[in-house]
Amino acid sequence: MDAKTSILDIQTVAKTRINEVDFDNLQFGKQYADHMMYCDFIDGEWQQPKIVPYGPMTFQPSAKVFHYGQAVFEGMKAFKDDDDQVWLFRPEENFKRINLSSQRMAIPEFPKDYFFESLNTLLELDKDWVKKGKGNSLYIRPFAIATEAGVSASEANEYRFMIITCPAQAYYNKPVKVVFAQEYSRAADGGVGFAKAAGNYGAQFYPTKLAKEKGLDQIIWTDASSHEYLEEAGTMNIFFRIGNQLLTAPTNDRILDGVTRKSIIQLAKDEGVEVIVDRVSVKQIVEAAKSGELKEIFGAGTAATVVRVEGFEHDGVYHDLPEVEQPYATHFKNKLQDIQYNRADDAHQWRYKV
Amino acid sequence: MDAKTSILDIQTVAKTRINEVDFDNLQFGKQYADHMMYCDFIDGEWQQPKIVPYGPMTFQPSAKVFHYGQAVFEGMKAFKDDDDQVWLFRPEENFKRINLSSQRMAIPEFPKDYFFESLNTLLELDKDWVKKGKGNSLYIRPFAIATEAGVSASEANEYRFMIITCPAQAYYNKPVKVVFAQEYSRAADGGVGFAKAAGNYGAQFYPTKLAKEKGLDQIIWTDASSHEYLEEAGTMNIFFRIGNQLLTAPTNDRILDGVTRKSIIQLAKDEGVEVIVDRVSVKQIVEAAKSGELKEIFGAGTAATVVRVEGFEHDGVYHDLPEVEQPYATHFKNKLQDIQYNRADDAHQWRYKV
Repeated sequence: MDAKTSILDIQTVAKTRINEVDFDNLQFGKQYADHMMYCDFIDGEWQQPKIVPYGPMTFQPSAKVFHYGQAVFEGMKAFKDDDDQVWLFRPEENFKRINLSSQRMAIPEFPKDYFFESLNTLLELDKDWVKKGKGNSLYIRPFAIATEAGVSASEANEYRFMIITCPAQAYYNKPVKVVFAQEYSRAADGGVGFAKAAGNYGAQFYPTKLAKEKGLDQIIWTDASSHEYLEEAGTMNIFFRIGNQLLTAPTNDRILDGVTRKSIIQLAKDEGVEVIVDRVSVKQIVEAAKSGELKEIFGAGTAATVVRVEGFEHDGVYHDLPEVEQPYATHFKNKLQDIQYNRADDAHQWRYKV
Repeated sequence: MDAKTSILDIQTVAKTRINEVDFDNLQFGKQYADHMMYCDFIDGEWQQPKIVPYGPMTFQPSAKVFHYGQAVFEGMKAFKDDDDQVWLFRPEENFKRINLSSQRMAIPEFPKDYFFESLNTLLELDKDWVKKGKGNSLYIRPFAIATEAGVSASEANEYRFMIITCPAQAYYNKPVKVVFAQEYSRAADGGVGFAKAAGNYGAQFYPTKLAKEKGLDQIIWTDASSHEYLEEAGTMNIFFRIGNQLLTAPTNDRILDGVTRKSIIQLAKDEGVEVIVDRVSVKQIVEAAKSGELKEIFGAGTAATVVRVEGFEHDGVYHDLPEVEQPYATHFKNKLQDIQYNRADDAHQWRYKV
């Protein structure tokens, strides 16, 4: 890599930390690759992006991100195929979405060439951190935060865009028990639920903690007004299989437009599975569970890929889901991973060669 | 102050920066007093609070506050009376509220003795930063942020509680034009609207920016489901005067339980003003504006104290508010400030001597 010809300012590590990492026992989000990118927005424009060794940074205690949650992020993964080639999966979607999130959070949009040049450079420098084998990946976390010092409650005029990466094994390794939300809510109509805005996530921690105390792993959020319709799981979109039909809620201003969600919808349609993108009522799912027509529930998201739900609680009643043969969850997870790891045809041009 | 007898670890500045500050031309939130407090939550408990010179701090880029907005804050003010005595206003309310906010955001509660000892010490050390005269104050910003390094989407196990202070003149110095929200929303039922959670504020910046582009200063948020009921202004609760009655929305899980709000309700009742704490419909306010019965709208909050609304827009129509003699806004602002600056009896024991 020739730093002189890059639009980036690149400072590499003197010595890699990769030998300190036990890649067989990774705790998600605890180990970071050698390099990171940061780029400051000052005086009305994004300055030159810098690649530097991963490490702590200095902020003013009055930086607006600490006080007003003016922050957005993305989640992506890099995969390595059997020939040591590194791939991204639909990175254009993440780029578009972080700028959509930024717009809603009054953060200036980030330039496309800076985004892709940074990703390519980071993945070139830290390619040894991307491990081969299904389930292994380098998780990529682009994010933007308001760095302006000043506690007045208005949008900042200074920001930092960053990309950090961390090696990941499968995010969730076992099926989860969920509860349908009846008291707490994730998002309001006209709010920021569709955006990957930082505050959407922190707001879920307490209700999720309460659910965990009852032995449940996650919450499926419902509409805030009536709690009658199932929306998303906070870090995953959610699919329901009734008979052989696949149901999922339409995206709206409360629901994240997930890349894994839309990929699974496409893969299912490709195979002739009937996909119904429409409001999914709690009533319908409870009745289908009782009648035995409800075959599966699964979550879909970048960090989690596809996660099978083994049962759900609603109105204090726990409903077990059946063990089905050839579950859609497993089938479409495999289909997706085969594309991600360059083991299958890529009919929709989703792979991006680094 | 004797550091040895304090529960705090105190490191004072070598030289004050107070002479660098033009107290007659303060920009809110841009200048900070000499000292700040921070206290880390590590290994399941709050460590010893430290008073140190105000300045930048080091954080991991993966600190959860940057990604998930797990952060809460408070706003308070210190006032100086004509005898150079410094006072706080109902600080117990802020203490209770930050812990209520923390609970909702899955942040551990902060100990009461740490909170008050820190406030007292900071205000003793930086008492020269509290200027006399109505409208002058030292704005106090306690806040708590998730500092744990790690991008997994769950509550942190490490936090930092901080108190920073900044000298303030009147926050808003002129009446504001507002718009009643019809598209965007601030909070969902079952959400975090009642908490001073960081993300509640960042989420308002974009809609507020759009309002400003139309020549309006602030948004009065309505209920997210129907936009039929007026709730709060994002950094202020809101009061409506119809005839001689004062109306304001009841607090609920979408609306902040403002200290200034409840103080004004009490002061109004003390004087025999009829205060109706009930849902305030947009329809009622628009009709009262048309009939001339709507005399005033004003906002109430710590930063702003009391802010007169000069007119509002709804359905694309702008309604001017009349200039009334002896407005409640001015009257109750004066009443409140007289108590805050120790110029009047304190019938409800709201003043707290530092």
